[in-house]
This record gives sequence, C-alpha cells and structure tokens, in this order.
Amino acid sequence: MRMYDVIMKKRDGGVLTDEEIGYFVNGYTKGEIPDYQASALLMAIYFQGMNEHETAYLTGCMAASGDEINLSPIPGIKVDKHSTGGVGDKTTMVIGPVAAACGVPVAKLSGRGLGHTGGTLDKLEAIPGLTTSLDQSKFFDMVKEIGIAVAGQTGNLAPADKKLYALRDVTATVDNISLIAASIMSKKIASGSDRILLDVKTGSGAFMKTLDDSIALAREMVDIGTNVGREVVALVTDMDRPLGRNIGNALEVMEAVATLKGHGPEDFTQICLALSSNMLYLAEMGTMEACTAMAKEAIKSGKAFEKFCQMVEAQGGDASYVRKPEKFTVSPVEYELKAEKSGYITAMDTEKIGMAAVELGAGRRKKEDSIDYGAGIILNAKIGDRVENGQIIATLYTSAVSLLSGAIGLLKEAVVIGKEQPEAEKLIYARITKDGVERY
Amino acid sequence: MRMYDVIMKKRDGGVLTDEEIGYFVNGYTKGEIPDYQASALLMAIYFQGMNEHETAYLTGCMAASGDEINLSPIPGIKVDKHSTGGVGDKTTMVIGPVAAACGVPVAKLSGRGLGHTGGTLDKLEAIPGLTTSLDQSKFFDMVKEIGIAVAGQTGNLAPADKKLYALRDVTATVDNISLIAASIMSKKIASGSDRILLDVKTGSGAFMKTLDDSIALAREMVDIGTNVGREVVALVTDMDRPLGRNIGNALEVMEAVATLKGHGPEDFTQICLALSSNMLYLAEMGTMEACTAMAKEAIKSGKAFEKFCQMVEAQGGDASYVRKPEKFTVSPVEYELKAEKSGYITAMDTEKIGMAAVELGAGRRKKEDSIDYGAGIILNAKIGDRVENGQIIATLYTSAVSLLSGAIGLLKEAVVIGKEQPEAEKLIYARITKDGVERY
Repeated sequence: MRMYDVIMKKRDGGVLTDEEIGYFVNGYTKGEIPDYQASALLMAIYFQGMNEHETAYLTGCMAASGDEINLSPIPGIKVDKHSTGGVGDKTTMVIGPVAAACGVPVAKLSGRGLGHTGGTLDKLEAIPGLTTSLDQSKFFDMVKEIGIAVAGQTGNLAPADKKLYALRDVTATVDNISLIAASIMSKKIASGSDRILLDVKTGSGAFMKTLDDSIALAREMVDIGTNVGREVVALVTDMDRPLGRNIGNALEVMEAVATLKGHGPEDFTQICLALSSNMLYLAEMGTMEACTAMAKEAIKSGKAFEKFCQMVEAQGGDASYVRKPEKFTVSPVEYELKAEKSGYITAMDTEKIGMAAVELGAGRRKKEDSIDYGAGIILNAKIGDRVENGQIIATLYTSAVSLLSGAIGLLKEAVVIGKEQPEAEKLIYARITKDGVERY
Repeated sequence: MRMYDVIMKKRDGGVLTDEEIGYFVNGYTKGEIPDYQASALLMAIYFQGMNEHETAYLTGCMAASGDEINLSPIPGIKVDKHSTGGVGDKTTMVIGPVAAACGVPVAKLSGRGLGHTGGTLDKLEAIPGLTTSLDQSKFFDMVKEIGIAVAGQTGNLAPADKKLYALRDVTATVDNISLIAASIMSKKIASGSDRILLDVKTGSGAFMKTLDDSIALAREMVDIGTNVGREVVALVTDMDRPLGRNIGNALEVMEAVATLKGHGPEDFTQICLALSSNMLYLAEMGTMEACTAMAKEAIKSGKAFEKFCQMVEAQGGDASYVRKPEKFTVSPVEYELKAEKSGYITAMDTEKIGMAAVELGAGRRKKEDSIDYGAGIILNAKIGDRVENGQIIATLYTSAVSLLSGAIGLLKEAVVIGKEQPEAEKLIYARITKDGVERY
C-alpha cells in the first residue's frame, strides 16, 4: 500500500477501506508516513468528508494506537462525561459527586485549560494540597472505595490523536466534523468507560458556534459510539453566556460547592441536574424521571456534597476549604466593571469573556504558562438582566494592576447592553441518542 | 503573516493576495515554511483553484526564486518552444534548426527523459561526441555565431518549482491546471526568452488525456504569459499515437535528420512545419502564410539541415553521423512484432508504447537510470493502417533478450486491431493565443 494512493483516493471522493485507514494511522503514529502526506490527506478529508464507517474505524485505530485503560476491575457500569469545553464550566465537580453518591462509579480522566476554556484539573488544584496526579492503583482503589476519582491522564492514551491534532492545528484542518468527533471519541474510548455522556456546547463561547453544527457533531460522536459498541448520549447545551457567575479556578470551586449545597446559580444547577440524571440513566439506574429525582435528592440530602469532600481528602486536598469556601483567597487586585448605560444585557461574547479571564491569570495562552488560582471574574449580571448606568456588572480579580486593562477591554467588547429585553434562551437545546435527535 | 492563515483563506475559497503568495513561495523555498503546511495549501488549491492573477503571480514568484537568464546580449527576438512531453517527439531537433536557418536566434534549454516520455538532451547525446553541458559563455557565443544552441540547464532555475513539484508528486496534488501551468511557465520565464511557443500534447500518451483539459492548460499558460508580459502561443497537438515512426534516442535522431532532409514521416513533418512557422510568426518574421513558406523553404533548400550539422559540430558532436545516419548502430537484439490478426489499427495506447521503449532501455524509470542510446522501437504501422495477420507492425531493438518480454507485452496491449478503419484523427486540434482559442 502507498500513502500516495490513499491521498488520491480520498481527494477523488473515494471511501477509504479499513486497511487504508489502519495503514495511515499506524504509519503516521510510528513516523513512517511523513507529516506532509498526512496533512495532504487531512485537507482532502476536510473537502471530501468521511462516512460513518470510515469515521468510526479511524476513531478505533486512534484509540488503539496507545494504552487502553481496562476499567473492568471496577464493578458496575462506568459512565464517563465529556464536555467540548466552555467558559465557567465546572460541571464535573458537581455531577461526578452526584453520580458517585447515587452509586455510579466515576473514574474520570480530565484535562487542563487552554485558551478561553478552563480545565477541571486546574480547578481542583485550586484546593490546597489536592493532587490530580494519581497512579493507576491509587485511581482504581479510590473508585472502588469511595466511588469517585478525578485524575490527569498518565498513560500514553491515543498518541495518534495527539500527533494528528498537533498537525491539524497548524494546517487549518481542525474544522471537520468527522475529524473533531474522532479526536474526542478516540480519547474517551481509550479511557475505558462503558458508557459516555457528552456535553456538546453551542454558541459564542463554544468550539461549535451554531446549533446545527453542534447537533451534527453530537450525532457524529453518538454514531461512532454505536459503531464501536459504546453507548453514547449527548446533550447540546448553551454556551452563548458563561455557565454560572464565576470564572476562574478558586472562584469556580466556590460556585461548585454552593451548587452541591443546593444554592448555586439557577442556570448552572439546571445543567448539572440534566447531565447527572443522564449519567444515572446511562448507568441503568432507572427511568429518566427516576434518575432526575435521584440526582435532586443526592444534592438535597447533602450526600453529593459529602462525596465531594471525601474525594478531595482522598486526593490529598484540604477539605476545610470545601466546607468553608470563604477560606479561599482571591487575587488581591480587585476591579469593578460598571455599566456605561442603562438597558438590558442582550449578548455576551463568551469566548471574549473567557479570554478576559486568561488575561487576568486564570488560564493559559500556551501550554507552558502558569496559572493564578485566585484570578478570575464574577459576573453580577447576565443575558436578559436589567442594568442601570453605573451598576457593577462584573468584578475582576488579578495579581497585578498591569493585567487589568486587557481584560477590561475584552469584557467591555463582550457585554452588549441594548434597549429591549431579549427573549430567554434555552439552556439545553437537544438530546441525541442512538435513536435520534430530540430537540427541546 | 502566518502560513496557517494563508492555508485557511484558500481552504475557504478566498483569493490570495500578492503578499500572501510571495510569502508562501519565498518562505517555502528558504525552508522557513515546512512541507506539511505547503502540502495542506497545495491540497486546498487543488479543491479551490486559483484565479488568473493568482496563477500568474505564483508563476512570477517561482520564476524569480532562483537564477533568471538574461538573453538580452543576444540580438533579435528570442523564441523558446516547450512541449508538454510525448512519445517519439523529436521536434526540437527539426524546428530549432529551421528557425535558426530563418534567422531566429534559438537559445534552447532542454530536459532529459523520465517515464514514458523522452527528452531532447538524451536524443542529442546519441550523436557520438556531442555534449549538452555548455557553460553560459559558450552557449551565448553559439547562439550569436551560428544562431542555435541546445543545452541542459546549468543555473539554479526556479528552485521553488523544483521543490514544490517534488512535494506535489508525493501528495497527489499534481493534477491542478493552475499548478501545472505555473510549474511549466516558471521555468520558461526564468529561461529568459522573449516569446514562448507551447506544444501542448493531448491524448493517450500525453499528460492531459482529453482535448478540453489540454486546451484549458494551454489557455492557462497563455494567460500567465499575458499577465507577466511574455507573448505566448500554444498549439494543442495529437498524442493519441507516437509522433513519427521511431522511438528511442539514436532512432529519433535518424528520423529527425530524414525530416530535415525533406523525407520524414508525414505526421511528424506536418507538426514540425506548424510549430516552426509559429516560432517564426512569434519572432515577427511575417504573416503566418509567409512564415509557413519560409519554414518549408528552409527544409527544401537544405539550410535547416546544414544548421543542424553546424550545431552538432559546435557542441562537439561527430556530424558525419548526421550526414550519414546509417553510421548509427542500433542495439543488437532485434525482435519483429507481428499482427495476430488482420484488420485496421484502431487505437494505440501511446503511454504504454513509451513504457515499452523504457523497458527496452531507451528511457529511464528513475532519474538515476542509465540509457541505451541504440534501444527503441520502429513502428511499421500506425492508427488507420490496414494490417494482415502475421505482418510486422513494429521492430524492437534492445541490448539483451531478457529485456524483450516486458516490452512485447506492453506493445501487444497498446496496439488494438479492429475490423473498421477508424476516421482519420487530427494532428493539430487548436491554436491558442492571447486573443482566444482557434479550433481546427
């Protein structure tokens, strides 16, 4: 087989065989196929697409290109949850404990923040003492003993994806729905869970800006799951505004704790309940109605919050911060951003808000950057809210005055104040299962 | 400027600016832009195309990427002729001397054969003693003194094209008409002639298999010429059968000599007259009618043949071979291929016939291969001819019996004998100038 022929076949709109896809993924991972041929194929795929079988087979090859975690020593149905990345998205810290409190084992491998989106590992590490570097036996033991562990990836998971993503990132071949879906799903499959819940964000702060694209991506990932024998459910949720009011690592832990205690922001609470009841449903804990009731009860009873405290302690964290979130210190430089006119907030460019948080020190522009856990933004007003001229719409926290101006500029651009109150937007747009798309 | 943005712009159907094209060509030639980004852009160009201005600007950048020959020390209008490559195409050895005999300076840089097509340098070197390695002063002196020189490329002409072509060749991005046209024209422009005559082959032995594609390529190259200020005329000529009857280096010199003496094969003579009269026309020697008469007279009077002898001697060749072509020795193993049934020759797969000559030793599969100047094929019958069962249709010459079987197999596949005499095909299909396409 020659890579040249594989490129030409796809260029001319052909359907690649399993052998051709396997030859490409294995050859590229081993360095036998050069970058320039891989990028030519990726661009051809960008234009010609891949069918459902090609996409699933590609995903499987990428998942099999490195270590594959075997979670079978842990009893029960393991359900993973993956978000496509958003601003203020601290759901894992809520729904993980809710699911674990209901008896679903949660063996979660999470990532770090990059660009305008945050990462669960960074947020958890805002808790003094907590580590997300767990070796495999510690990780397994925690899931078996307390039902939950959230750790960073240790093994060599889906190296083909890592190498291909780096190439796509510099050759303008990221934006293809099959390649995006295969990239996400290859890591989830290698991570070993039996079932996968996807939170596909849509809107100005999301990777997918339109609802149609978000639903298409969700369908593609559910189809991959069906093809490789892993049940997948996807919710398409709103990212036209940040999730909750707090953005930044310590600030987000505080908001997650409030939500676990039953008094979090309404939008964030609603998303957490929808996601956790779907996790329970995937774990075969009952009907959707029963699962929703169980999730609510786990919060109301305090069991989910206790599960989170247990997890924090097991991972070396000081749970007193979680029990008394006022112990968290925010960064010393505080700035109150005020509305420059009266009216209604009609739009929030969520990506810009996320970048403002990065400017303040809450995130990373490049992988090597360090993080200021106490930096971030509290939003005092959100889309649809009435604001008066001079009213505080956001409070910014950072370590140095010099970091403020960039963030203030971005926030002013991001928040639009108009005359008319906009119609309320949905929080959850659609639920996609192997049986089809249910729009809300 | 970032290469990523250039790739994305073209991927999304945008028109690249002069700055973007220059950035790409210069950066890639210098090695500052990696192969994997260049191949992604080439594949995006494959799908999205380039407009007339983009193609011309790309060509100009490629021409300017290395040495550019300045032919102005040579008085008169210098006309170059370029063929897109065919089987049995020994036209340069005829039309160069015809043009020079008529007073048009011919400063011709030629190439070597690769794959199924031959190259003028190899053919000339079949003449004992002749060298095509001329340094620049010798080359210029010859053109000034005797009016003609045919040499191999010495300087670093269009290195951008060389590097890009090598990349296109392994990434399935050769087949784009703008890129093909830019590649050919960049070398012609760097070679320095004032006017350019193109012989665009069409048919089974040509790079472009269909007439429409061949005309489109010819138009693209004429447009490039117009845009960069070089007048270009293109003839689209037949390559659904080999040109003339002889294929192979010494065999082709013998046929070129016969043609210069006025008794060459009819098809080849007709093509040579059409090309040389267009060269004279481009050099402003008169109307097309007058130029055709001049070209015929140059052959009839023996002046063109004497010019060829002068050139051979000036390049160190033994002109006695040209004056007495029976001095050439052909390769010792001779095989007569006979018709296996009676009928008419209805088709000749010309690429396969070219590959058969390569099998016999007349050409190269890889650049490094050596050549047997005496090897080749004489076709005793061509399309439209009546043949009887057992009649010799081709004579093969090679150095070893072991080289015969592959060539015989290819030739048998290539030559189709049917019941009905096919309609006579045209030799010249179209003439393309900056004023439009004239079909014959």
